[in-house]
Amino acid sequence: GVLGSGDFARSLAVRLVCSGFRVVVGSRTPKRKASLFPAAAEVTFQAEAVKKADVIFVAIFREHYSTLCELADVLVGKILVDVSNNTEINHHKESNAEYLASLFPACTVVKAFNVVSAWTLQSGARDGNKQVLICSNNQEAKRTVAEIAQVMGFTPVDMGCMSSACEIENIPLRLLPAWKIPIFLALGLFLCFFTYNLIRQVIHPYIRERKNKLYKIPIEVVNTTLPCVSYVMLSLVYLPGVLAACSQLYYGTKYRRFPDWLDQWLQHRKQIGLLSFFCAALHAVYSLCLPMRRSHRYLLIETAVKQAVEKKTTIWVEEEVWRMEIYISVGIIALGLLSLLAITSLPSIANSLNWREFSFIQ
Amino acid sequence: GVLGSGDFARSLAVRLVCSGFRVVVGSRTPKRKASLFPAAAEVTFQAEAVKKADVIFVAIFREHYSTLCELADVLVGKILVDVSNNTEINHHKESNAEYLASLFPACTVVKAFNVVSAWTLQSGARDGNKQVLICSNNQEAKRTVAEIAQVMGFTPVDMGCMSSACEIENIPLRLLPAWKIPIFLALGLFLCFFTYNLIRQVIHPYIRERKNKLYKIPIEVVNTTLPCVSYVMLSLVYLPGVLAACSQLYYGTKYRRFPDWLDQWLQHRKQIGLLSFFCAALHAVYSLCLPMRRSHRYLLIETAVKQAVEKKTTIWVEEEVWRMEIYISVGIIALGLLSLLAITSLPSIANSLNWREFSFIQ
Amino acid sequence: GVLGSGDFARSLAVRLVCSGFRVVVGSRTPKRKASLFPAAAEVTFQAEAVKKADVIFVAIFREHYSTLCELADVLVGKILVDVSNNTEINHHKESNAEYLASLFPACTVVKAFNVVSAWTLQSGARDGNKQVLICSNNQEAKRTVAEIAQVMGFTPVDMGCMSSACEIENIPLRLLPAWKIPIFLALGLFLCFFTYNLIRQVIHPYIRERKNKLYKIPIEVVNTTLPCVSYVMLSLVYLPGVLAACSQLYYGTKYRRFPDWLDQWLQHRKQIGLLSFFCAALHAVYSLCLPMRRSHRYLLIETAVKQAVEKKTTIWVEEEVWRMEIYISVGIIALGLLSLLAITSLPSIANSLNWREFSFIQ
Repeated sequence: GVLGSGDFARSLAVRLVCSGFRVVVGSRTPKRKASLFPAAAEVTFQAEAVKKADVIFVAIFREHYSTLCELADVLVGKILVDVSNNTEINHHKESNAEYLASLFPACTVVKAFNVVSAWTLQSGARDGNKQVLICSNNQEAKRTVAEIAQVMGFTPVDMGCMSSACEIENIPLRLLPAWKIPIFLALGLFLCFFTYNLIRQVIHPYIRERKNKLYKIPIEVVNTTLPCVSYVMLSLVYLPGVLAACSQLYYGTKYRRFPDWLDQWLQHRKQIGLLSFFCAALHAVYSLCLPMRRSHRYLLIETAVKQAVEKKTTIWVEEEVWRMEIYISVGIIALGLLSLLAITSLPSIANSLNWREFSFIQ
Repeated sequence: GVLGSGDFARSLAVRLVCSGFRVVVGSRTPKRKASLFPAAAEVTFQAEAVKKADVIFVAIFREHYSTLCELADVLVGKILVDVSNNTEINHHKESNAEYLASLFPACTVVKAFNVVSAWTLQSGARDGNKQVLICSNNQEAKRTVAEIAQVMGFTPVDMGCMSSACEIENIPLRLLPAWKIPIFLALGLFLCFFTYNLIRQVIHPYIRERKNKLYKIPIEVVNTTLPCVSYVMLSLVYLPGVLAACSQLYYGTKYRRFPDWLDQWLQHRKQIGLLSFFCAALHAVYSLCLPMRRSHRYLLIETAVKQAVEKKTTIWVEEEVWRMEIYISVGIIALGLLSLLAITSLPSIANSLNWREFSFIQ
Repeated sequence: GVLGSGDFARSLAVRLVCSGFRVVVGSRTPKRKASLFPAAAEVTFQAEAVKKADVIFVAIFREHYSTLCELADVLVGKILVDVSNNTEINHHKESNAEYLASLFPACTVVKAFNVVSAWTLQSGARDGNKQVLICSNNQEAKRTVAEIAQVMGFTPVDMGCMSSACEIENIPLRLLPAWKIPIFLALGLFLCFFTYNLIRQVIHPYIRERKNKLYKIPIEVVNTTLPCVSYVMLSLVYLPGVLAACSQLYYGTKYRRFPDWLDQWLQHRKQIGLLSFFCAALHAVYSLCLPMRRSHRYLLIETAVKQAVEKKTTIWVEEEVWRMEIYISVGIIALGLLSLLAITSLPSIANSLNWREFSFIQ
């Protein structure tokens, strides 16, 4: 049974019908809504629908849960599946599923399907995310819903008791939580190093020698800033591992919990590493663009003309040549190794490596 | 039971034996073929094999289906699994499975396993695509075959009634259908802009000033063409969303189907976007190659020599310098953002993002 | 039931409790260890625990298996799940699971869960590899363990009889086995071509003309070596397919096994191809870096000064210009095509292509 006639209710009904289930839809205005549902689904009044179904998907907004109270009698003993989502993280004190359970104490409430979008339901699980997170206090009901999800082509994941409902409801609302701290860290480091390099390369020569080097800001100053950020970030990837090892040696046990800040740090290593790679890659692109610029061209011609006028024909400085050749070689090798690390952090590659291979590459 | 002794029949038998099933193979020349099958599989005459099995995989070509008619009596009530593929899309009027069902009305026909290759069967589902699309008019038979697929390590996907058989049979034959229109679009746009740039950069200077600039064709003309194509393609990614919104506002409902052309367009956005990124990336590589060319070098030296002969030492044009610095900076940032979009369109990354994260990145 | 109190035992207990199983943990010092396990798991003496459980996970080292012999009486008829790993490939003559089975002939031994890490168990299967390889001589026991794995959120994969245990135990220890030969091949080719180019570009000019060109070693010699390696590797990708076809034509059958060396070669094609792409990409980056070097700059200025002094204003060589333009164009196109091949070899992309699409792109 499906209660509701929104996008999600319809997609759910379509998918259930396609998977071979008999579906009955409950609506307050069944005649008007019938055309929205597939022909194989029976659309009828809510009380009627509830009577005919054992498992009832409640596809209506939390605000309208109380309107179901008139159905309380017929709902006794049924499994209610709460598929709702909130619009804000921790919007209400208790999760939607717990609220539904408190309204209908005679029913078994299961939280499920909220992480699946209406689009994924309609198009089949082939392209989208296949997991359906399920939680409930009743093992039996949980198993029933898990089986329905499996037949529909999804992978049910047991998330334990109803107390996880809040966590599950927050999942579709999270916005790259693991990236927030690393990104602000990278921006902070960039600002510091940018200011330092700006003073050193532009402001200082201007004050001391009245030379206008402002044109260096968009590319050269940024390009000397990026590798600094990249290096510091890379060291921040490996530092917490060392600190954790020291802490374990100091306390003589590996079962003691790390302090919270260290734990957080350890969990953000992958993101910090990827941002470090991103900065290194940008540095490579900026460096490759250097000879393309007008300023590079003008400086080159100016030097050539100066040399020609002064009739000097040799300007070769062996040391300068070697420094640059080695600098570029090492840079390319470092970028190649970082690329390898970045590629192995792609989920589909990482999943095909075992632990020994992963740590070897690291 | 398996009828047939081709590559697919053998791989199927191997896999079934490995998954713990008792397998009987039916062949017209069982003695000659026995050596091809694993020892645990019993190879016998077709009628014999059919009698012993409840589920029979028909691993023979559609052209030979009629040779099974002599087995019609023993086949009564059995589940026949049609695993066949065609060599051309919509080769026959009715799908192979429907043809088989029409030949044996007393059997239950299930279409399955045709999207799995013999190689995937043999090597296990670990490396290949794990989905097995199943359709049948009989729910019970469909469930039986789905369970067999599951035990074999595949993910059964219910595709509904037998009328989907035609669609399922076309899947292994499709050739990047979603890419055809976007690629022709990109080629068309490239040709237009290439012609325009050719006239402007090569033919026009030749006619007006008799200057031979033909050397510009392979790199410079292509390089000015690519960003034009990229920009137009990128705008074509976002335009249909705006049109769709306008259409919804105009008709005042979101339940009205979009016209077919708009629907097609909306579905090809990802491919158009990736081609736009491809053109932008090529433009970046071409631009980075510019200072590597002999022509660039010759022009540089010529200018220097001219300046030296005329004893001019300053050629610095502040405006030109700034234009180039800003142009390159903005180009790098744009390419970085497009790369991010391209990376998040990788299936394994896209599946780990929720809807809110995906639309944030977009 | 879980026997053992190490990291793996605890993670296993946590996961089993989370998945709704009743868990009893057997330990020799239950009071001291109880705090390590989740509250819902009962921690008791080993004999006690074994009596209460039907399926017993033996999460102790192989060296301590014999200490379980005192439990032989209570273990009769139970399913023992061997989750152990070795520290070296083929460390012992017989696999751990077979050794356990030989110690307790009255039990049914199943090998499973050894490819799953304690970390994956604790964090849930969402991020890590989801497959659990299972083997046993008893189909019934195998099915029971497979069901437990499924409820825990993993994908059970049937690996057949107990004789596969050895193979399964080696899986977490393998270190990129498919990459070893291709990498040594690439290194060998690199060394050969590097020596040749070193002699040609540095040693020969030094001996003949006493010119010091040592600065060319880090970048220019490497850069002329890389495309040679890349080309030879690319040809080694396509050569074995041709040899295989010839062998099939020669013997007139496609059922004859290829000689071992050809079989190995065919299986390493993907890795050889990716290394070829890696060399080509490095060559591209090195080439793009060429105009960035001091030596390039000095040579340019020197030429300009020489020209200016000699008052020559035209140095344009049409043939040289065209050679370079075409060389760069073709290089970019080749790299673009190789990139396409590399992208389609990513597991998540390759799995979404059918055979026809894959061979079309190849």
